[in-house]
Amino acid sequence: MLLVAGTHGNEINAPWLFDQWDNNSDFEEISGINLYRVIGNPLAGKECSRYLDRDLNRSFSAELWNSLESDAQEIKRAKELFNLYGPRGQHPCKIAFDFHSTTAAMGNSLVVYGRRAADLALASLIQFRLGLPIYLHEGDENQKGFLVESWPCGLVVEIGPVPQGLLHQRIIFQTRLVLEVCLEEIAKTISKEACFPNELIVHRHLKTVDFPRDKEGCPNYFIHKGLQDKDWIPIKHKDPLFENINGNIITNNEINPVVPVFINEAAYAEKNIAMAITKREVWNLNEKWKVALKDLLIN
Amino acid sequence: MLLVAGTHGNEINAPWLFDQWDNNSDFEEISGINLYRVIGNPLAGKECSRYLDRDLNRSFSAELWNSLESDAQEIKRAKELFNLYGPRGQHPCKIAFDFHSTTAAMGNSLVVYGRRAADLALASLIQFRLGLPIYLHEGDENQKGFLVESWPCGLVVEIGPVPQGLLHQRIIFQTRLVLEVCLEEIAKTISKEACFPNELIVHRHLKTVDFPRDKEGCPNYFIHKGLQDKDWIPIKHKDPLFENINGNIITNNEINPVVPVFINEAAYAEKNIAMAITKREVWNLNEKWKVALKDLLIN
Repeated sequence: MLLVAGTHGNEINAPWLFDQWDNNSDFEEISGINLYRVIGNPLAGKECSRYLDRDLNRSFSAELWNSLESDAQEIKRAKELFNLYGPRGQHPCKIAFDFHSTTAAMGNSLVVYGRRAADLALASLIQFRLGLPIYLHEGDENQKGFLVESWPCGLVVEIGPVPQGLLHQRIIFQTRLVLEVCLEEIAKTISKEACFPNELIVHRHLKTVDFPRDKEGCPNYFIHKGLQDKDWIPIKHKDPLFENINGNIITNNEINPVVPVFINEAAYAEKNIAMAITKREVWNLNEKWKVALKDLLIN
Repeated sequence: MLLVAGTHGNEINAPWLFDQWDNNSDFEEISGINLYRVIGNPLAGKECSRYLDRDLNRSFSAELWNSLESDAQEIKRAKELFNLYGPRGQHPCKIAFDFHSTTAAMGNSLVVYGRRAADLALASLIQFRLGLPIYLHEGDENQKGFLVESWPCGLVVEIGPVPQGLLHQRIIFQTRLVLEVCLEEIAKTISKEACFPNELIVHRHLKTVDFPRDKEGCPNYFIHKGLQDKDWIPIKHKDPLFENINGNIITNNEINPVVPVFINEAAYAEKNIAMAITKREVWNLNEKWKVALKDLLIN
């Protein structure tokens, strides 16, 4: 199993937690799990920047690795991490957890990319323990190449709100809590003691919404005060999304209730994302998911 | 009068407010005040970084301008701003307001550098209107070369908490409020209608406190949860300041009550500042301060 922190160099709480680990070795065995931990982008971390050349967490794709951009620092680092810890790497890992923080008020949350059976089974175990919300990221052609997608099973942990580059007690302890529960649930799956829920609640990605912008491309509206810090809370048709300096308001045009997430994540402005819009869905747990996770971990 | 926003490129709310100004010209006359407004560090703003080579707001000193470092982008920019808008510049300004934001929970606040009579008079007018707290920065040999010190009179406005690089409704409106009050009070001083208070309350700088660090120089303690976001609230002897991952606590060693400010400002970690410690003092207003401000504005 691979634990990654600091995939973005200005998200400093999880890397700090790794530094405080009692055992200074990057490898240890906990509850029968062979555990590697690694700082995703240490060069960006030194600069306290999200990245140097490009977003490392959009750089995990064979297409990019063979492209003209392959000189970018983050593409080299993505290849290196994959060669070291990928499923057929030097220290092969089956599962990757990637610990992030966000300026959005996401609380403790998980991001699942697509609908891989083992991911959904593992996410359900963590949701059952902590009750945390899950953002199911899929069908977004503009955003690809996430780290965890290069492992057979992998989840992103997103914790916020916290400014970039700032150590925060709450974020540190929330990160540790999710980390401990992840390890416990994987250990229980290996020892066949895992207790799966009957349902999985996901917030399925529908679309992203950009800031309204002026003709120079600069945002001329900000997040409406009633929406700031209200991630995971359903909004209705005509609820306010944005406001400008003169008090003009732009409202939600979705007819059915939707749930905004990653509201005002500072790093997403450059990606033209003011928030993501999701739909809350309750899924019955599929037996095949459990089998996929058990097969991966036990065999 | 000179209004500066974006002296730090990742403090984006005040520059955004400037962009929304009805009049697109950088110069206008409001209530009899000749007003210039300028983005302090536009190159850092494009990168959404605090600075490119060095902190612009520590780069206003003749000593630096003639030093070996004078190739740094921010030193060139400091000279340029001084040559354009300094008291003997192309567009001479007598007063500079420098609008900042901070990740610390400073609310609306002013920073005064040293004890210049006109600064104290102007700060008293704004404090009388808004009741906001004032940080008197003085006697700190490690921090010099602040922008406003190069003008005959000048104040820094600090508003927070807000993450770096994030537009926030509350910060935008707080910035606008202070800006409007600054202009109104200067206009009233010119028209001899200013109403000065009898007292000025300042929080006088005593010292800065760094994070406890390990032997590699990395912080191994974080701000105690009881202190985070508690700027301007007095702390007593033995009150907790820092906590580590094992729950060990480092307490305040000042015997008399002190007031911490700039608690956990993300940009100050690299300056070895976890917070500044101040002493709250109530000063009688000095007639000479009023005379200094009136002389500057009316003659």
